[in-house]
Amino acid sequence: MNKAQEVSPVVADLVIKNVRQNAGASVNVAIVDGKIASVGDHVANAREMIDGGGAIMIAGLVEAHTHLDKTLLGMPWYRNDVGPRLIDKIENERVQKRALGIDPVRQSARQVVLSISKGTTHIRSHVDVDTECGLAGIEGVMATRERYKGAIDVEIVAFPQSGMLVRPGTVELMKAALEMGAEVVGGLDPSSMDRDPKGHLDVVFGLAERFGRPVDIHLHEPGELGAFSVELIIERTKSLSMQGKVTISHAFCLGMPDQDYVARLIDDLAAAQVHIMTSGPASRPVPPVKRLQEAGIVVCAGTDGMRDTWGPYGNADMLERAMLVGLRNNFRRDDEVERALDTCTFGGARVMDLQGYGLDVGCKADFVLVSGEILAEAIVTRAPRQLVVKNGRVVARDGKALIEAE
Amino acid sequence: MNKAQEVSPVVADLVIKNVRQNAGASVNVAIVDGKIASVGDHVANAREMIDGGGAIMIAGLVEAHTHLDKTLLGMPWYRNDVGPRLIDKIENERVQKRALGIDPVRQSARQVVLSISKGTTHIRSHVDVDTECGLAGIEGVMATRERYKGAIDVEIVAFPQSGMLVRPGTVELMKAALEMGAEVVGGLDPSSMDRDPKGHLDVVFGLAERFGRPVDIHLHEPGELGAFSVELIIERTKSLSMQGKVTISHAFCLGMPDQDYVARLIDDLAAAQVHIMTSGPASRPVPPVKRLQEAGIVVCAGTDGMRDTWGPYGNADMLERAMLVGLRNNFRRDDEVERALDTCTFGGARVMDLQGYGLDVGCKADFVLVSGEILAEAIVTRAPRQLVVKNGRVVARDGKALIEAE
Repeated sequence: MNKAQEVSPVVADLVIKNVRQNAGASVNVAIVDGKIASVGDHVANAREMIDGGGAIMIAGLVEAHTHLDKTLLGMPWYRNDVGPRLIDKIENERVQKRALGIDPVRQSARQVVLSISKGTTHIRSHVDVDTECGLAGIEGVMATRERYKGAIDVEIVAFPQSGMLVRPGTVELMKAALEMGAEVVGGLDPSSMDRDPKGHLDVVFGLAERFGRPVDIHLHEPGELGAFSVELIIERTKSLSMQGKVTISHAFCLGMPDQDYVARLIDDLAAAQVHIMTSGPASRPVPPVKRLQEAGIVVCAGTDGMRDTWGPYGNADMLERAMLVGLRNNFRRDDEVERALDTCTFGGARVMDLQGYGLDVGCKADFVLVSGEILAEAIVTRAPRQLVVKNGRVVARDGKALIEAE
Repeated sequence: MNKAQEVSPVVADLVIKNVRQNAGASVNVAIVDGKIASVGDHVANAREMIDGGGAIMIAGLVEAHTHLDKTLLGMPWYRNDVGPRLIDKIENERVQKRALGIDPVRQSARQVVLSISKGTTHIRSHVDVDTECGLAGIEGVMATRERYKGAIDVEIVAFPQSGMLVRPGTVELMKAALEMGAEVVGGLDPSSMDRDPKGHLDVVFGLAERFGRPVDIHLHEPGELGAFSVELIIERTKSLSMQGKVTISHAFCLGMPDQDYVARLIDDLAAAQVHIMTSGPASRPVPPVKRLQEAGIVVCAGTDGMRDTWGPYGNADMLERAMLVGLRNNFRRDDEVERALDTCTFGGARVMDLQGYGLDVGCKADFVLVSGEILAEAIVTRAPRQLVVKNGRVVARDGKALIEAE
């Protein structure tokens, strides 16, 4: 993958010596103006020189699905005794936001800093929009995005967590969120949440068309019900020529038993260039990552909710996510484990349409040094990240972000 | 759970000040002659005093299912390109043991030391017995057990990984392993491996009866085939009065769709006091931990194979295993997450019939200090273990074992 020895014409801002891009041969990587200026044997003159010690260099980790506005990180332990249904969790969360004082500015900052420490350089965050919290979540995450710009890129999905049509006033808030700075139109379980799949999806895609924005829909609906929603999403993607701009998150229905139906859905998703996001959940049916990738579908991954009122798990580590995606998909061979990593790097980059992503000359200098002989070892050991570079600047070392949350 | 302020009559060997047993109130724990001599406000006179700093004290972690003889820990990375079937993995492993030079003495020592660093005080290890490796695995793990005795307890299951009846000579080796020092009779997929469920189980239980030993059978067989094996195991457990002495490891069939059949199996397992071991695998059906526990069945957990020719995952951390069991079982509430931890502590202790296990006065001083406000937090954060005590002696501090592998 490396371009051979392109010699940097100027004094480099930073040179990382002796690193192995994607576990390949040892090279030196020079950075000029926030971009990778050369990769090879040559050691450029540089203002700063860091010895990589033979570590693996991978492209910055991409957290393609999380909820920055509502983590409880750093807050007193929340004793979870919530009921088992999805609606129990949604309704409990709306109550707790106020009761616990979950401040989206403070909480998103905490998670963002944790993500930086783990080598994440890009985040797509769904952010709640509802008639109780209004746009406070959007404003909070936007403030955090502004504060940490340069150290991490954050993309915001306006997310109607409590439903849209069932809660009058939500559509107007969604519009306002998109006008204010959210980049992506979110959606949620058109049938099981809004009780009106056509109505829900018409609004989501209507907003996407009006604002010229991508779409990312949470789809927890199981089996054939979820499959019907997938069909409706594909139809709208094609009729609005939104190929490559639509993501279905979770898509548990693609793990349903009816394999003939799944095969048809996979063909249709590939044809419509609809992307799939998975967190690799162990307790739910999951989209089959290898089959999707082999069909040409872009698959990205995310932490999803982390240490929140839904559940206590999660540490924002996308290498751990790669492990969980690998475990869930029974990936044991090295080439399979590398597929899991791809969902946490290039898969996410394609879903977020990141320009200049990668390790080649000319790419943005967004990368991570990880420990291991080989990529799979980096995933299974998950040592603290030796170095994280974003826009050509060191933002974390030895597992610690160089910037603090508060 | 704590007994109130029992005052130690003598100078304690060790006092751990300011710890919270199972996240309860702060107490001081005095140790005399390797046992917990007092728990309470009183600070005994002590030869050594350690400030726990308010950490949580839990009973020593119990690794109830692993394979110490064949981890590749510390060896060059093994590039896995093995086929998808169980038999592919078994046959590849027999070849690789020789080709890679997987020395059971060296490798089991490495895993044991890693386990000590993570707070594991007891291990049940299945160890391969077959006509190619003979008893080398048993001898190797026995040498490691002897070398680290005092720092960790290891129980050995003679395990016919490559089948018993299909490989003549294996039964004799199983006998020799039990005579030599293996404590438990192992078995493996009576139908799908040995092609003779009655024959296989008659040998396994025959050995158990002859040597007066417990049984622990690997059962990967899916659905109704596995369920039939479960029935045969229950029948033999009852007819030999081996209630409480038989464990089924994996038992994927208990995750099969036919819920009525599963309900009958659970009732019968509970009546026969057969224990279940799960590693909480994300890609396979799993025994439903909460339902089993509620039915009175003892459930333990294990890492299973770790960094071996079967797959690259695993780090011997039983807190991570609790997380994986929790994720697989969709445990979100605090009380549910504590169920997952129980499989890694008391569940394992009951399966291994450990005497004096626990944190009460009179128990053996085998415990771990973990970080967190509450038990669930210790599991989701999995910070390096502050202190590990075995038989009253400190064996690990700050995530590092005080003893080395070589």
